[in-house]
Amino acid sequence: MADSVSPVERGILAAVLTPVTENLAPDIESWLAHCRRLLTEGCDGLAVLGTTSEANSFSLDERLALLDAAAAGGIPGAMLVPGTGCCAIPDTVALTRKAVEIGAAGVLMLPPFYYKPVSDEGLFAAYYEVIQRVADSRLRIYLYHIPQNSGVPITFGLIEKLLAAWPDIVVGIKDSAGDFANMEAMIDTFPGFRVFSGSDEFLLPILRAGGAGTITACNNIAAARSARVYADWRNAAAEDWHREVVAVRQTITRFPLIAALKEVMAQATGRPGWRLQRPPLQALSPEDAARLMGELGKVGFAVKQAA
Amino acid sequence: MADSVSPVERGILAAVLTPVTENLAPDIESWLAHCRRLLTEGCDGLAVLGTTSEANSFSLDERLALLDAAAAGGIPGAMLVPGTGCCAIPDTVALTRKAVEIGAAGVLMLPPFYYKPVSDEGLFAAYYEVIQRVADSRLRIYLYHIPQNSGVPITFGLIEKLLAAWPDIVVGIKDSAGDFANMEAMIDTFPGFRVFSGSDEFLLPILRAGGAGTITACNNIAAARSARVYADWRNAAAEDWHREVVAVRQTITRFPLIAALKEVMAQATGRPGWRLQRPPLQALSPEDAARLMGELGKVGFAVKQAA
Repeated sequence: MADSVSPVERGILAAVLTPVTENLAPDIESWLAHCRRLLTEGCDGLAVLGTTSEANSFSLDERLALLDAAAAGGIPGAMLVPGTGCCAIPDTVALTRKAVEIGAAGVLMLPPFYYKPVSDEGLFAAYYEVIQRVADSRLRIYLYHIPQNSGVPITFGLIEKLLAAWPDIVVGIKDSAGDFANMEAMIDTFPGFRVFSGSDEFLLPILRAGGAGTITACNNIAAARSARVYADWRNAAAEDWHREVVAVRQTITRFPLIAALKEVMAQATGRPGWRLQRPPLQALSPEDAARLMGELGKVGFAVKQAA
Repeated sequence: MADSVSPVERGILAAVLTPVTENLAPDIESWLAHCRRLLTEGCDGLAVLGTTSEANSFSLDERLALLDAAAAGGIPGAMLVPGTGCCAIPDTVALTRKAVEIGAAGVLMLPPFYYKPVSDEGLFAAYYEVIQRVADSRLRIYLYHIPQNSGVPITFGLIEKLLAAWPDIVVGIKDSAGDFANMEAMIDTFPGFRVFSGSDEFLLPILRAGGAGTITACNNIAAARSARVYADWRNAAAEDWHREVVAVRQTITRFPLIAALKEVMAQATGRPGWRLQRPPLQALSPEDAARLMGELGKVGFAVKQAA
């Protein structure tokens, strides 16, 4: 975790959960502890303030405070890829500036996501405004394709326009739509463009296809396994680890994703407060929690209980 | 526009456009002038900071400043129904508090709209947090059903729960989904619940069905006609006016809605700046603008050119 690490560009990133206090404010100390734990467990980087982080449920000030806390807490900026895309350009600019300021390796930028459908020209204009206003050559943007939440897909036409305009700034994408053919096609069409999968299922396939790695929710609890896949992806041995990661993912996704991961964190840390979420998201029922832990046990995922 | 007007509860409301400056900041003076013009033309109230207002493209501070400007500019709070629903509860609370502070007749509250699908229990919890934190008996909430943008429909089950918990606070809904059967069913199912249509097509039908009126984008340019319908809706004479309103609506909606309305405003006021929008939304092309004005002319809608 030395400050001299080079900015993360590939590998295993966690879409970092955000624990909250009883008052539903970000629990900064628990969050920092979680960030440190993830780096220890083998994450190459931390995608904080993304979908799994409930970022859009936090105000701009709350999000800026989390980024300041990461810097003050010694999380190396080079390992951070914070989510910064909001509906309103001034918010995206403020968050992106802060990310650059703390030395983030890059930002994961949702398109403005209230209006739909919107044209590629309109989206290009939105990125134009952000990039012009941030006005910093250190900026590195990963696009964020998650149409099931945003309602605003990132098309090949848009990527092409953005790469033509800012080849040094627009460096990659996180594809959370779950269609591997789309990821492969981006890798083939845009050489050098770093394509991360948002789904653990494609960890090994995307590395073999020349992709950059994964940025996933399950890496909050399965980073050690994912890291083994990444370390060894050229060898058949990686396949066993990959099967384990996929089994965890498939179990977790039978439940509301963030609630399920927070349940595991509550059990692993012995802190019931980990279960809390900002509405409209909610904790699992005790019945679902018990079922989740049972099913995770069946796929060999044992939660290390806190002492 | 006396300060003693009673809070608007029925009638014709405009979903007020927000003009922006060349720097894409809200153009407060033009906006106030537009608000005043709409009240003069017969609007019973002003739904500022909604979808047509590009509210989600403005930061919290920009939106708070607009509400302050309305109060300072003498727009009676009793005629305002500002949009206040954001993805993040603290933002919704801050905007809602400001609306109550300036004496707004009510607020039009989008549900948190990033996560989908979400349960009615989760949405209820989100409203609970907002209402508890605003903690003001003057608060009046209109729900906002616009699943084509929000991705989060307002179900009958949710309305029932909200009315049971806060019968004096949750007073109505704006239904922008365009399904008249849903509006009729809400009117029948929830007596006293004020149902506004977000589509001009249903202005006369919803009044006849016992609904509250319309909150529409086209009322930015057709308020005088809509007001004639509202004044006379019990009589057959209203039908001619209604046909005119519907013709304008049908013409406008063949184009991107906000862009088309801003084009009409640019021509009516002689201020080209009215065409500007925050990305990802964009102005009409000159070709589309010419086509729009031609088609509006064919349905008898003449733009009064500025002197």
